Amino acid sequence: MSNNSAFANLPAPPYYVVVFTSQRTSGENGYDTTADRMVELAQSQPGFLGIESARSEGGFGITTSYWTNESSIRAWKQQAEHRIAQEKGKERWYEHFEIRIAKVERAYGQQQQGNP
Amino acid sequence: MSNNSAFANLPAPPYYVVVFTSQRTSGENGYDTTADRMVELAQSQPGFLGIESARSEGGFGITTSYWTNESSIRAWKQQAEHRIAQEKGKERWYEHFEIRIAKVERAYGQQQQGNP
Repeated sequence: MSNNSAFANLPAPPYYVVVFTSQRTSGENGYDTTADRMVELAQSQPGFLGIESARSEGGFGITTSYWTNESSIRAWKQQAEHRIAQEKGKERWYEHFEIRIAKVERAYGQQQQGNP
Repeated sequence: MSNNSAFANLPAPPYYVVVFTSQRTSGENGYDTTADRMVELAQSQPGFLGIESARSEGGFGITTSYWTNESSIRAWKQQAEHRIAQEKGKERWYEHFEIRIAKVERAYGQQQQGNP
């Protein structure tokens, strides 16, 4: 089963990545709606390049969002609706999270042939 | 439920991250044993700082490994047993993967209080 839409389609480096690793609390508590909305909102921000996300059964997840430069990351962090979501995240949704901002210097990949 | 062992315990930046995003093929095909072995082996490599990993039900996953510098990342890529695993990954385990090597410049996080 192919799932290529899960991959961000990115330009050649350099660009930036925000690595967001998190442990969810138990219970949904309105998380899914806000998470979907934040992806939608991020996509409309200047400098947004793409996003990838995975969460294991136990609630540990990694989301990587990609941006043209640091200033677009800072602007996204300050975006009003996003700030409200961040507060809810701290209070309700995440037991623990870590954020690392990094400059992508090299990138490569491979896709098996013969897949649709 | 706390799952803090899923988080890498990292020093202050700068350091490097390898972001490995992948779509698994269907079927186990010996993947789990090798994946566990590669984590064990990576931990014994010079420059290794930590690793975090999440995979969603559909088989899309993100693994972030953290390293002191680029040369330790290059050395790990060339490590003999790891090279064999990389070949199997391309042939059997991953329908599609992308690797981004990035320099972490800033990092912050938060853990809820009152958790064990």
